[in-house]
Amino acid sequence: MNKNYEKKIDDIIEKLTLEEKISMIHGNGLFRTEAVERLGIPSLKMSDGPMGVRHEFENAHWNPIGNSDDYTSYLPCNTALASTWNTKLAYEAGSVLGREARGRGKDVILGPGINIMRSPLCGRNFEYMSEDPCLISKLVVPFIKGVQEKNDVAACVKHYAANNQETERLNVDVEVDERSLREIYLPGFEAAVKEGNSYSIMTAYNKLYGYYCSHSKYLIRDILEDEWGFDGVVISDWGAVHDTVEPAEAGLDIEMNVTDNFDDYYFAKPLLDAVKEGKVKEEVINDKIRRILRLMYRINAFSEDRNRGGYNSLETREKVLKVAREGIVLLKNDKYILPLKDNKIKTVAVIGENADITHSNGGGSAEIKALYEITPLLGIKMRLGGNAQVSYAQGYSEDASEKEKLINEAVELAKNSDAVIIVGGLKHMAEALKLEQNALEVTKGDRVKPRIDSEGYDRSDLELPYDQNELIRRVLEVNSNAVVVMFTGAPVDMTPWIKDASAVVQTWYNGMEGGRALAEVLFGDVNPSGKLPMTIPKSIENCPAHKIGEFPGGKKVKYSEGIFVGYRYHSTYDVEPLFCFGHGLSYTDFKYENMKVNVSEQSEDIRVQVEINVNNVGKVSGAEVVQLYVSDETASVKRPALELKGFEKIELAAGEKKTVKLELDKKAFAFYDAEAKGWLVEKGMFKLYAGSSCQDIRLTSNIEISKDYRY
Amino acid sequence: MNKNYEKKIDDIIEKLTLEEKISMIHGNGLFRTEAVERLGIPSLKMSDGPMGVRHEFENAHWNPIGNSDDYTSYLPCNTALASTWNTKLAYEAGSVLGREARGRGKDVILGPGINIMRSPLCGRNFEYMSEDPCLISKLVVPFIKGVQEKNDVAACVKHYAANNQETERLNVDVEVDERSLREIYLPGFEAAVKEGNSYSIMTAYNKLYGYYCSHSKYLIRDILEDEWGFDGVVISDWGAVHDTVEPAEAGLDIEMNVTDNFDDYYFAKPLLDAVKEGKVKEEVINDKIRRILRLMYRINAFSEDRNRGGYNSLETREKVLKVAREGIVLLKNDKYILPLKDNKIKTVAVIGENADITHSNGGGSAEIKALYEITPLLGIKMRLGGNAQVSYAQGYSEDASEKEKLINEAVELAKNSDAVIIVGGLKHMAEALKLEQNALEVTKGDRVKPRIDSEGYDRSDLELPYDQNELIRRVLEVNSNAVVVMFTGAPVDMTPWIKDASAVVQTWYNGMEGGRALAEVLFGDVNPSGKLPMTIPKSIENCPAHKIGEFPGGKKVKYSEGIFVGYRYHSTYDVEPLFCFGHGLSYTDFKYENMKVNVSEQSEDIRVQVEINVNNVGKVSGAEVVQLYVSDETASVKRPALELKGFEKIELAAGEKKTVKLELDKKAFAFYDAEAKGWLVEKGMFKLYAGSSCQDIRLTSNIEISKDYRY
Repeated sequence: MNKNYEKKIDDIIEKLTLEEKISMIHGNGLFRTEAVERLGIPSLKMSDGPMGVRHEFENAHWNPIGNSDDYTSYLPCNTALASTWNTKLAYEAGSVLGREARGRGKDVILGPGINIMRSPLCGRNFEYMSEDPCLISKLVVPFIKGVQEKNDVAACVKHYAANNQETERLNVDVEVDERSLREIYLPGFEAAVKEGNSYSIMTAYNKLYGYYCSHSKYLIRDILEDEWGFDGVVISDWGAVHDTVEPAEAGLDIEMNVTDNFDDYYFAKPLLDAVKEGKVKEEVINDKIRRILRLMYRINAFSEDRNRGGYNSLETREKVLKVAREGIVLLKNDKYILPLKDNKIKTVAVIGENADITHSNGGGSAEIKALYEITPLLGIKMRLGGNAQVSYAQGYSEDASEKEKLINEAVELAKNSDAVIIVGGLKHMAEALKLEQNALEVTKGDRVKPRIDSEGYDRSDLELPYDQNELIRRVLEVNSNAVVVMFTGAPVDMTPWIKDASAVVQTWYNGMEGGRALAEVLFGDVNPSGKLPMTIPKSIENCPAHKIGEFPGGKKVKYSEGIFVGYRYHSTYDVEPLFCFGHGLSYTDFKYENMKVNVSEQSEDIRVQVEINVNNVGKVSGAEVVQLYVSDETASVKRPALELKGFEKIELAAGEKKTVKLELDKKAFAFYDAEAKGWLVEKGMFKLYAGSSCQDIRLTSNIEISKDYRY
Repeated sequence: MNKNYEKKIDDIIEKLTLEEKISMIHGNGLFRTEAVERLGIPSLKMSDGPMGVRHEFENAHWNPIGNSDDYTSYLPCNTALASTWNTKLAYEAGSVLGREARGRGKDVILGPGINIMRSPLCGRNFEYMSEDPCLISKLVVPFIKGVQEKNDVAACVKHYAANNQETERLNVDVEVDERSLREIYLPGFEAAVKEGNSYSIMTAYNKLYGYYCSHSKYLIRDILEDEWGFDGVVISDWGAVHDTVEPAEAGLDIEMNVTDNFDDYYFAKPLLDAVKEGKVKEEVINDKIRRILRLMYRINAFSEDRNRGGYNSLETREKVLKVAREGIVLLKNDKYILPLKDNKIKTVAVIGENADITHSNGGGSAEIKALYEITPLLGIKMRLGGNAQVSYAQGYSEDASEKEKLINEAVELAKNSDAVIIVGGLKHMAEALKLEQNALEVTKGDRVKPRIDSEGYDRSDLELPYDQNELIRRVLEVNSNAVVVMFTGAPVDMTPWIKDASAVVQTWYNGMEGGRALAEVLFGDVNPSGKLPMTIPKSIENCPAHKIGEFPGGKKVKYSEGIFVGYRYHSTYDVEPLFCFGHGLSYTDFKYENMKVNVSEQSEDIRVQVEINVNNVGKVSGAEVVQLYVSDETASVKRPALELKGFEKIELAAGEKKTVKLELDKKAFAFYDAEAKGWLVEKGMFKLYAGSSCQDIRLTSNIEISKDYRY
């Protein structure tokens, strides 16, 4: 690392007054700190948005400025990105976000979000990636590099840590055993910091072990800084700080909030006073300034040659489209209805509100003022052009009184169409929630039943809202070949109709080109290659956090399911999911052959090399994600039936064969030994599974590790 | 021409009942005729829009349907296209329009509009191309080929003929001498039909010589069909038909209108009755059916393999951007302020409402539901990225009470910025006119003073609306290097500040990528190469139609200025324009050398070959439009001082030299001899002028024609 600037930073700290230092460590606007013009130190400017750079607000109020100059690119949500299982695309997506953040004059882009999908119901799941720490780690590293490498802008990985629900998010106290914290909830952050070199990190709203994350010496000083060696900036979530001395000492560097009384921030006058009164040493403040100035040097904030970035380039749209294409998951295709044959289809019924509405402008802080957003209906019409008659029926509505009319219209249309495409799912507009709040019964306590993907709310259940199940069932009755597209940010319950539906596609809030990508997949221009980054359960009771009654919890939430999150639970306890982690079909078939494994043990590490031949035995080119899972057959503690430890996505022409090479080290075999406060690989037998999903295992190999490894 | 289908057409006509025929020749929806399902004859579906394919309406009302599926590409307006003087781009623009029309399921796209800009004030000038018939002819031919050739869709060139104003457009009776009609107003249509092979043509609202254009045997039967051999479809403008027998006999094929009483159309029940009563022969109807079926065969409407088209492709945006770039005209660059140096500029003031508003959704029938539209402000910010602070001040407003506040804000901003870009001009939203109607004094009669570019209204004068002149003057007072951008569809009066402005750029309603293109020109990524397709006069009194008091006329308008329209008037009568026809600067300089002319006379025609060497003697690559004008030195009638007869646009790297070859035939030297009812080249001396504009003549050559040619 180039540390030429460390000396310069010391010089600047010498020159700064205490008041100037204080002005640099708290918000002096919704999304900025104060500049120290006397010394040429700029304001640090931040922006929301894992899915793009959010529009501009007035300095001290949540009022959008409303000019034409902040229309921007709208990226597929992180769930979509994770569904690509494509590390190169993660880099490209990050590079778009970084370029646009810099182009919009930002220094820090508040993303990526990588919290574990502990429950399918968490309202921000669409901003996150997966239930699996390995998949998250492999994607977050290139994503952050994409953001930072060529753009002179900082990523801010969030929300550190254990921020896995929206209910009571501002105060809930998470109790999770340390093994689970280390194995499940922290690896993504560790990779983001140690491998991705994220220049900043955002602390979460919630408490962990009784401490707000922004106040947690354990999380910040001990793990993040001492263990992982993080020398970047720790920024609070907006309003996540509740005191002065504790977070200052714990290692929080910048307090952000949402008020216009900037001097009242804990890190403003109260902290100034605390230093003056000797309650906090000035060196504690200097450490924060050092980190902030280091970030500024890293992003060339003092340089004339700083990268200027840009936004809305034509090239960006191609990148966004690539991610959108690969993020779509073909869940089911029993009768090979897909891809639809455009030359045989004269009339197409597109049914369902999600075919016709945009989503970019909702969801909470991830909202984007998109330059444009291609809906599924628009994408399908663009794709089919003038030779097919595409008709639309809304099918369902927030307004329950329209139900019968809309379903009848949809059924009539479906009866008289060569092809039927139902596009249902969730949405994340605040309007939807308001309507729901009015319309739906209140559950125990004063909680309503949200069924939307949005920051600030968890869904009440997995059920599709607005009587979509009935709509889908009744359309399938008149056309059993109807294709069902689920357009969501997280799993929904498809069991009411899944047996009757032959073709089911999962798409996501898929960016400005999402509708085009969907049409390309439906009509076979693009062979789907997305894989689920989470389990789609058969019922919410099959999700461990819910099974044990610990979601969303009360003032406290106990993660008593431990490490058995998602497929770790389903596979270990033989609970059949609706669609398993890693699942995703193709229009071609891949044959796995010849698994070769070579184990070499060194004094401090293990090296396991795996080779698998993969053959595209179908008639069209396609891409396959070869997944490598590990199980510990002789562990002294309870371990999952299998855990993802590696994967690679390959493209194969029809008839083409490639050899996939994967390599594992000791981390792939270790568990966290909470008593010993360290990782342990226990000697004995391990199984390696190579497969197309966590259930569709094609090849297996046994290996033996000859001794214990602790680290 | 492939006429395999003529026999099939006869067979179909045999089978059609009279009622079915009648159903095919009038609107049965806002934009369609009726299908004859019994015989597999489809409805003929049309759409408005030279600048893109207009959004969808209910069948019988002007209510937009409002789904997400008709967001579409927004092309630069025809004025912008004409400013490129680039025949290849005209083809590309046409191909985009045709592909999207077909993609949206249309059979006929109602464009291009090519009426002569007789006055700068005509409200639809932005939909038209030029004041010059040669420039129009050279561009309309590739445009129509682009629409039709690969898209299986028909162009509908409009409005035939002499539809040169909006005031009283539904009834005004145009009186123009035949020579002027032939030399100025008809050549574009003749080229569209004979060379462009336009499959259809739209008759204008107005009268010519006392007959509504839709009723005019002279225009339709005599000139269009008999003289030019047009065998396509003649479609009325919407509501331009006022009787039954007269237009039916005159050759109008389809009556369109805007009512839901489709059976009451003149070409519906009244015409059915007229045929039954023997007032119109059924063969007259058969001729219309024959033309309609011929158009259907030409666009493969009966074929399974018909081109399906598409819309909103990524490639389309590149094409639209290319047109936008080349349509921008650098009017003035005295102190070489342009291009702006982005690396030296830290603060940019962008001033003027036209920098921040969109125009696609206005203007009358040319309105487009654009997928997106990049404004100048957005384009500039996208281009400059994060290293420059771009600030915006509205500067002017429809609301006169805000004037002082807005000007003061703008002046303050300009004072404190490294670079200042003023973006003013016109707009074409209906809202603007409504406000004007309320705010502005009423002139004699009940006419208001519109100052917008919109169908249905002519501007009252050339003056910039909303006190922009004062804004510009006051900004130039504090920053004499401010760049002034005029964003209009037609000329405006710049004399109040032109001497004080060093850098002036003319842009137009420039399509979805217009703001990006403008920023690229301002910051030198693109070297401007647009040339004015019309004269920008010093005052409206310098425009011949106005000078003689014949714009807009009353119930009748006399084109007594004859052929002396635009630069023909200015150059012949030595009236100095503000910026002349053909004018447009570059960031490089072109040297013209070595004009070689070879004349060869044949028995029936003349062949004049001209070669000119053009050398890019500047430091950057650029494109030049080499313009070739002709004057008749020994004519027996009054002819213009010079007339454009050829041009070619060439790209030259810095230091590169190319030879431009142009060829003229007898048409370049002829005038219309009204008495003899034919064209005449008179023997004698002619001058050829090669230049960079009609005033900036670089090389001259004299030639002699040895005998008269009549045709």
